[in-house]
Amino acid sequence: MDLPRKDPEYSRLLSPRGVAVVGASTDLARLGSQPVKLLTEFGFAGKVYPVNPKYSQIGGLTCYPDVLSVPKPCDVAIIGTSSQHVASTIRQCGQAGIPFAIIFTAGFREVGGDGVRLEQELKQAIAESGVRAVGPNCIGIMNVPERAYMGFGPGFSNPKLRDGPVAFVSQSGGFAFSVVGLVDAQGIGFRYIVSGGNEADLSTLDFLEHFIDRDDIEVVVSYMEGVSDGRRLRSIGRRALEKRKPILVWKAGNSDIGRAAATSHTASMTADYTLYRAAFREGGFIQVQDADDLADYIRAFTGRKLPTGNRIGLLTTSGGSGVLMADCCDDAGLTLPPFQPGTLDRLRSIMPAFSTFANPADLTAQLSGQYALFNQGLGIVVDDPNVDQVAIRYGAVEGGKSLLWAQGLTEVAAKTDKPVLVSWGRPPDLNAPSLRHLEEHRVPWFVTPLRTARAAGVLSQFSAKVATLRPANFTRPIEPQALSLPEDGAALGEHRSKACLTAYGIPVGREVFVPSEALAGVSSLDLRFPVAVKVESPDIPHKTEAGAVALGVPDMSAVKTTAHALLEAARRYKPQARIDGIVVAEMQTGLETIIGGVVDPYFGPVVMFGIGGVTTELLKEVSYRFAPFDVQTAREMIEELRLAPLFRGYRGRPPLDITALADALARLSCLIADHADRIAEIDVNPLFVRAEGEGVAAADALIVTRAVQAPSP
Amino acid sequence: MDLPRKDPEYSRLLSPRGVAVVGASTDLARLGSQPVKLLTEFGFAGKVYPVNPKYSQIGGLTCYPDVLSVPKPCDVAIIGTSSQHVASTIRQCGQAGIPFAIIFTAGFREVGGDGVRLEQELKQAIAESGVRAVGPNCIGIMNVPERAYMGFGPGFSNPKLRDGPVAFVSQSGGFAFSVVGLVDAQGIGFRYIVSGGNEADLSTLDFLEHFIDRDDIEVVVSYMEGVSDGRRLRSIGRRALEKRKPILVWKAGNSDIGRAAATSHTASMTADYTLYRAAFREGGFIQVQDADDLADYIRAFTGRKLPTGNRIGLLTTSGGSGVLMADCCDDAGLTLPPFQPGTLDRLRSIMPAFSTFANPADLTAQLSGQYALFNQGLGIVVDDPNVDQVAIRYGAVEGGKSLLWAQGLTEVAAKTDKPVLVSWGRPPDLNAPSLRHLEEHRVPWFVTPLRTARAAGVLSQFSAKVATLRPANFTRPIEPQALSLPEDGAALGEHRSKACLTAYGIPVGREVFVPSEALAGVSSLDLRFPVAVKVESPDIPHKTEAGAVALGVPDMSAVKTTAHALLEAARRYKPQARIDGIVVAEMQTGLETIIGGVVDPYFGPVVMFGIGGVTTELLKEVSYRFAPFDVQTAREMIEELRLAPLFRGYRGRPPLDITALADALARLSCLIADHADRIAEIDVNPLFVRAEGEGVAAADALIVTRAVQAPSP
Repeated sequence: MDLPRKDPEYSRLLSPRGVAVVGASTDLARLGSQPVKLLTEFGFAGKVYPVNPKYSQIGGLTCYPDVLSVPKPCDVAIIGTSSQHVASTIRQCGQAGIPFAIIFTAGFREVGGDGVRLEQELKQAIAESGVRAVGPNCIGIMNVPERAYMGFGPGFSNPKLRDGPVAFVSQSGGFAFSVVGLVDAQGIGFRYIVSGGNEADLSTLDFLEHFIDRDDIEVVVSYMEGVSDGRRLRSIGRRALEKRKPILVWKAGNSDIGRAAATSHTASMTADYTLYRAAFREGGFIQVQDADDLADYIRAFTGRKLPTGNRIGLLTTSGGSGVLMADCCDDAGLTLPPFQPGTLDRLRSIMPAFSTFANPADLTAQLSGQYALFNQGLGIVVDDPNVDQVAIRYGAVEGGKSLLWAQGLTEVAAKTDKPVLVSWGRPPDLNAPSLRHLEEHRVPWFVTPLRTARAAGVLSQFSAKVATLRPANFTRPIEPQALSLPEDGAALGEHRSKACLTAYGIPVGREVFVPSEALAGVSSLDLRFPVAVKVESPDIPHKTEAGAVALGVPDMSAVKTTAHALLEAARRYKPQARIDGIVVAEMQTGLETIIGGVVDPYFGPVVMFGIGGVTTELLKEVSYRFAPFDVQTAREMIEELRLAPLFRGYRGRPPLDITALADALARLSCLIADHADRIAEIDVNPLFVRAEGEGVAAADALIVTRAVQAPSP
Repeated sequence: MDLPRKDPEYSRLLSPRGVAVVGASTDLARLGSQPVKLLTEFGFAGKVYPVNPKYSQIGGLTCYPDVLSVPKPCDVAIIGTSSQHVASTIRQCGQAGIPFAIIFTAGFREVGGDGVRLEQELKQAIAESGVRAVGPNCIGIMNVPERAYMGFGPGFSNPKLRDGPVAFVSQSGGFAFSVVGLVDAQGIGFRYIVSGGNEADLSTLDFLEHFIDRDDIEVVVSYMEGVSDGRRLRSIGRRALEKRKPILVWKAGNSDIGRAAATSHTASMTADYTLYRAAFREGGFIQVQDADDLADYIRAFTGRKLPTGNRIGLLTTSGGSGVLMADCCDDAGLTLPPFQPGTLDRLRSIMPAFSTFANPADLTAQLSGQYALFNQGLGIVVDDPNVDQVAIRYGAVEGGKSLLWAQGLTEVAAKTDKPVLVSWGRPPDLNAPSLRHLEEHRVPWFVTPLRTARAAGVLSQFSAKVATLRPANFTRPIEPQALSLPEDGAALGEHRSKACLTAYGIPVGREVFVPSEALAGVSSLDLRFPVAVKVESPDIPHKTEAGAVALGVPDMSAVKTTAHALLEAARRYKPQARIDGIVVAEMQTGLETIIGGVVDPYFGPVVMFGIGGVTTELLKEVSYRFAPFDVQTAREMIEELRLAPLFRGYRGRPPLDITALADALARLSCLIADHADRIAEIDVNPLFVRAEGEGVAAADALIVTRAVQAPSP
């Protein structure tokens, strides 16, 4: 992971004492002038300094000719001047001691051509002046409770946005504020909202890192098209788990068409979505896909309680919603355990006879109006040691009774550490006071059974990640080993690739390398026949294509004939290829798997595991982990696949050596991580997994190296 | 499919001229009395007749001692008396000429014991009286525009529910009305809402069939836990496609826990979810999972336009939402084709320079306020022959301009047959007049990019089903064939099972059956060695388990030795087994597939196709179709699997004989359909698929028959 950088004083950016608005004009509807109006009319307590040599007053405020003449303290300069003047304005801010700039101006990197040069100049001005900048091409920053609306556009037009312990960092400003509006309409507030624009200086990752550590923030939200430092994204994900604060991440640009659009939009460098998903999965990220998910998950996490397992108890007064919620909980990875006998006894003693006491419990519509009895039932279910959290749906209670119910409910919820989630089921407008009461007491509520179940699932998922967070110093299965790698960035032939595996203790099938010139003299080989015969050449990585492999060769004389034929085929296939000789290898059996690794320019070394030949590719039945990792992580990679039951002895077959496989994966992860500067790719395909206790064997291997001179990403 | 039943006169149920409320009391808050209040206070134009011998007046209305004394015409009797009296009340309704009853009373089949008997008596009363009944254990029926609120509970408390061309049939009344409330709050109305309860007489299927054919209904919604006639469900799905009216189906009770809960809730018989999914897929059903989906899809379909393909054009003013919508369209099965050069030229000539004209087109925030220009751009994109429908997102326009934009937009939309979907992006409350304008002109709008894309995907999906609806009289690959099946319901041995396949022209590998007693005398076999040797016995369906199979037997003498060993193993395994002899079969090669069929008690004959051995089972890579079907459907079954590329010649392998495979599947579908009364299951595993032109061969087969005497389901 990267070393922490010197942190800017973000509080001066987010809670500025004074804000200069550079390029403001007397037309306050104009983009660059809007902050003057917003900061004076919506209740911002700091000073506002319009800057424009053309005017002496703007909107009733003194207007200054340049930032140097702005009174101190001034913490932020909002810049909306033309793109040619932005860099010089930044330098002036440096001289004036203004630590932060928010740059609205567009026409930089995102438009190509001259814009790219202008952004380079801007970066230089930022570096030399010491000013920290947001943007360019952003729509601004908002501190909601302090009404520091330092932006423009319709997203900033609502002076009554709610406050909440949530920060939002977005790579699309327009979209972010649209979402803020939709989520606010569901009763959920944000505290800080940042539109990062081109991220010429301060980036999404900078803000995520800051917000995860801020005491007044409980949940961080990120709309993300791409980041340029995947390793740092991972370390932020880890920090989020340590702080038990989720990052709700809305990742766009994942499909081919989405990615093409994202590239022209923000010009972000975008790594493959697979690696983002791997990073999200291991760290404190929760993926969201829509505004409703976002609202629901914020509500769930600001409830401040995490379940200690994935068992949920459901209590309803409508069978239909119970059935549906049970289905949805199943989809969300939750289980519905039976209640304990004591729980059943207690419920039976007080509830109507036609109730169903199984989980989901259906107390029936006979409980209409009997809110106190329902809450008593909730207390009983919450106490059951079989459940880690409880979701309830109590038909439709409206008006005064609804509030009384809600009050009783929060009393029950206050007495337990288990989350109590409420599925409401009526349009929220009809029950506003009750819902406000739940919100004040941090009892999360949701509109439908599906949304309730998903929120419960996400709490359980995050909690499991927090619980299984392993120490950063993992246990290596092997210390770093020296490898002999060519300096020119060539691929290694099979035998040399396998030598690297052997150096890291990854088992390789028994084989003999015969240099071309020695072939004639070999009369016997200490191998079990039949064997495979293959051409060894750094220039022919795909031997099957070249006709340079034969399998099942029965004896020594056939080996010689075959070897000559293969060598000839290889020379025909690629006349310039360097051919080192022949590898003769024992035939392997077992379950065919593939293990491999790449060093991604953004995320660093990552290891892949898959089962089967074509299955792996066509069904994408593969798992990924960032390297290096320990055997425990390797086991999770294996168990994660739907074909994993094959290892446990499927349909009468013997169990397979999952221990040896996990060990090989962990060793491979060390190999690629230790040599990430010199190795580009490793492919061990197939790796045969034998029956339990009999180990694994690599039957083919290919290592592609990186030239020593190549610039490191 | 079933013959159509004599249709009740549903208009008398849904638009009654008079309604008797049997068992009403002067306490109008009581469940059985609520309709008196609702029908008199909310604007219902028909007559209301409370019935109760204890009172002379209820709620200011004359109260009648029994239904016989109720004035005519009276079309509906609402019954809320105790369960013991319901059957006799129904008989009285018959005498009084009241054609319909809505029975609220609970305590029937759903509580077991005595309730089961009471429901039987009720059914008999229904059959004998000719009265058609809804319920028991239902919460009622609603005709929204006529304010015929014939039910009870909070779902009926809103006198201002919107009207819309939508009917809702639900197996959970409480849940249905909760959903109606949520969807109504999003501006979407229903016309008829039916809570079916125990469905002792009129069922979900009866109402679906009726609503599909009603002229005032454009979309039908169904909350379904299970139906007892899957074949009729299928014919209704077909009718929906013929009428181009979707049935939005919310299926619950799909997971194991959900199904367990559903059984105790409505006591519905529930077939496996797999078969429901197959029925939904082939017919005019669209599955929904939440209230938001439901609202969105209703909006999309009441737009009354269907795309003619799956190509969508996107037009936005925020790059972020374009990226996101592109991802979501991809997930929803839509493609984003490039615009035609003419379209690009026309856009370029009028739009700001920094716009992105690729698809998704991003006209940038510079179009703020320029609504007429945006609509001009929409007109251009709509005209592009490359797109079948268009989705737009126009940043945030509010107030007066928003209405002007909406007006221009509906003019553009009126000129095209392509759906134009609007992604709004701001809380709907802020733009109510504009949204009403869109609704009046049937231009569908949605809140977020995801919801817009999903609705577009569903329109495209439904349209494709309508377009590919095949004639009910499909082309049989083979006429019905006589089979010799045992009358006692036994399984057939492999050789006899294969004879059935052969009768239907399904290729079987070459093999010879040798009766036990003839084994000693056989000296040669006209087969290609090596061969497989297997025991033929109707009592040992799983031969591998019994050790009754040997593969790769090299020659005749080995066949004999092996045969004796296998026979011995089989006798040890199951001493009472009838053993007919030995099957000696040529070894087969090719891609291993599995084809099979079952006769489901609810849905009838269904055929399954899967690729690979364990893959099929663990990854659930299988497809299903109801039998019989033609080779075109069989091809779709194959193409549907993610492993289908294997047939087209994957990674340098030869293409496989997909024609022969499709033919075999269609023939199997005829086999099981023609003999559905006598065959329970067929399993052809494996069926080897050889290279193109070389056909397929069944290597093993098992047919389980049904005894002649067994009652047909």
